[in-house]
Amino acid sequence: MSATSQLDPTARFLMGPGPSDVHPRVLKAMATPLIGHLDPQFIAIMDDVMDMLRRLLQTKNEVTFPVSATGSAGMETCFVNLLEPGDEALVCVNGVFGNRMCDNVERGGAKLVRLDAPWGSIIEPAEVKKTLEGCSPKLVAIVHAETSTGVLQPLEEISKIVHDAGALLLVDTVTSLGGTEILVDEWGIDAVYSGTQKCISAPPGLSPVSFGPAAVEAMDKRKTRVQSWYLDLSMVRKYWAGAKRAYHHTAPISMVYALYEALSLIFEEGLEARFARHRRNHELLRQGLEELGFEFLVPSEYRLPMLNAVKIPAGVDDAAVRRRLLDEYNIEIGGGLGDFSGKVWRIGLMGCSCTQNHVNMLLAALRTIMKM
Amino acid sequence: MSATSQLDPTARFLMGPGPSDVHPRVLKAMATPLIGHLDPQFIAIMDDVMDMLRRLLQTKNEVTFPVSATGSAGMETCFVNLLEPGDEALVCVNGVFGNRMCDNVERGGAKLVRLDAPWGSIIEPAEVKKTLEGCSPKLVAIVHAETSTGVLQPLEEISKIVHDAGALLLVDTVTSLGGTEILVDEWGIDAVYSGTQKCISAPPGLSPVSFGPAAVEAMDKRKTRVQSWYLDLSMVRKYWAGAKRAYHHTAPISMVYALYEALSLIFEEGLEARFARHRRNHELLRQGLEELGFEFLVPSEYRLPMLNAVKIPAGVDDAAVRRRLLDEYNIEIGGGLGDFSGKVWRIGLMGCSCTQNHVNMLLAALRTIMKM
Repeated sequence: MSATSQLDPTARFLMGPGPSDVHPRVLKAMATPLIGHLDPQFIAIMDDVMDMLRRLLQTKNEVTFPVSATGSAGMETCFVNLLEPGDEALVCVNGVFGNRMCDNVERGGAKLVRLDAPWGSIIEPAEVKKTLEGCSPKLVAIVHAETSTGVLQPLEEISKIVHDAGALLLVDTVTSLGGTEILVDEWGIDAVYSGTQKCISAPPGLSPVSFGPAAVEAMDKRKTRVQSWYLDLSMVRKYWAGAKRAYHHTAPISMVYALYEALSLIFEEGLEARFARHRRNHELLRQGLEELGFEFLVPSEYRLPMLNAVKIPAGVDDAAVRRRLLDEYNIEIGGGLGDFSGKVWRIGLMGCSCTQNHVNMLLAALRTIMKM
Repeated sequence: MSATSQLDPTARFLMGPGPSDVHPRVLKAMATPLIGHLDPQFIAIMDDVMDMLRRLLQTKNEVTFPVSATGSAGMETCFVNLLEPGDEALVCVNGVFGNRMCDNVERGGAKLVRLDAPWGSIIEPAEVKKTLEGCSPKLVAIVHAETSTGVLQPLEEISKIVHDAGALLLVDTVTSLGGTEILVDEWGIDAVYSGTQKCISAPPGLSPVSFGPAAVEAMDKRKTRVQSWYLDLSMVRKYWAGAKRAYHHTAPISMVYALYEALSLIFEEGLEARFARHRRNHELLRQGLEELGFEFLVPSEYRLPMLNAVKIPAGVDDAAVRRRLLDEYNIEIGGGLGDFSGKVWRIGLMGCSCTQNHVNMLLAALRTIMKM
């Protein structure tokens, strides 16, 4: 048997926490023949990708490009470049990704201060303020869209509090970027990272990051080398944004093609239209799920449109239902992570997976499987 | 103008140090619609990829899978997992990638011992032996195929010396894997990393790694956490090779498809046939280049077939010739790195770029441009 015939996965509808469905134009973009990572034509594509990322993040930050690995490497990039051993960092934790940030801080030898809130709740600005009275961190890190709980974290008030305390604000936008508004400059976000496989609807493999002037200054003032060679932005930025594009590592060319095409699709749709589509289909899903008796984990005012966490009704077999959704309907939804394992489903409406047809298919399948 | 029309790079012949040309079947594989990174069908693909990597590396190592980033991250993965702060490591340096290894050792807080040899020469086993009389490293690192110079490093004798000294042997096979024989188990290599964009002829974006029993034991005995969250194999291996495939990060699915297809192509051709093709076309290129008056940097017995470093003749404008090759012939070759910048060209014959047609095209173009 030819090996080719085995690379023939069943067509799925990806409605979990990512990856999301990818537009055929993006799939086709990845099949574009390769050119060199220092080819003038590739550098022109890189320039366009950086411009589009700046527009998407609504920032003028020069240091704005995709790191050559998935979203969690974007997280690590931010921590290893901004913190030095002995620095203090305050991490706000209300889900799995806040915990992962803490892990990053500790591995870098920085001093961790945690501010915990219940999973499914936001981080309250007043709590941040209170915590900052007892410490003087270089950096405060917070998750904009907590993929493990479906919480959308308001950032403007916290940004002011963080800057009043003289700290940098680092924000995780892995799940929100491309699906809801993120105003990096207006909100005063100093450093941000994201992923390509959520609302941008490109395959996983790159992590857009953006560093503002204060974050760049913090990097430039380092006394120690960044602990990671691969993620050291003092070198990576010379390849992406330097006057002379200096070789650092070989960029994942096909993934950059994919991101280029996915960003192009975003601007063809328009940011406002795209964000409205995410809100609209979230509303349709919410209505349908509530009619079926589901309860949302997060209060309505703080719900992410693109990641809907609902409580699994009592008596329902988590794994069995998700397996039937996958096997009989080719629909993937996500189970709970960490404390929410077995208790919560996470239904993604991200990018190309955010359509009324996706919502309708899922609701119909759930109705049948759960005999609701 | 539609953005799509801009993603239309000129078709190139990639004869530099990587990426190499990618087979149409691999390009097509990347356009395969995405499924989830925990989908049972994706896990089956992962299993096949691991099996094929083991066959390619000729190893039984269970911990054999691609790290979710390019080759340099594979290098970093090996160092951060095998070394702890204070450990001693001996790095053999005869080119850029040996230097990069030293950088990795230092960033991890380990104690570096360097053994330098002139660029373009091999590391002599006797020198390794002598150096090991003055230190007791946990690890000896060496490059099998030095991409900056074109040296093929013999490993068997050094492996014996390293193990007699009680150290682990770590080998960089980024440029050699898929183009020449690598016998991980027979040669006693404890840890190895590679890249996908050289002789495997997949796009850049993944780094195959393999850890043998002694390396796994060293990881398991660590007293400190690995400094990188993203590259911490104690977690990553649970996703790739654990009994229950535990979520760590979202794998770059399309890149895994590409690697699957590229590895399938390798085994359809057959390892022996593939290695013979690399030797044959290297010989054709050597003959042609020598007829044009070029001199090789490396003595014939230690030349890599897939990376041919030749001295730029006196009076020839390095950048101008390479620019004409690219603009007029769509052929990319590589310039010199580091000390060899402006002095050496690096001509790759890797994977799909290793054909007699590639050789003939390049020789004809050089003949015309350089009026030889």
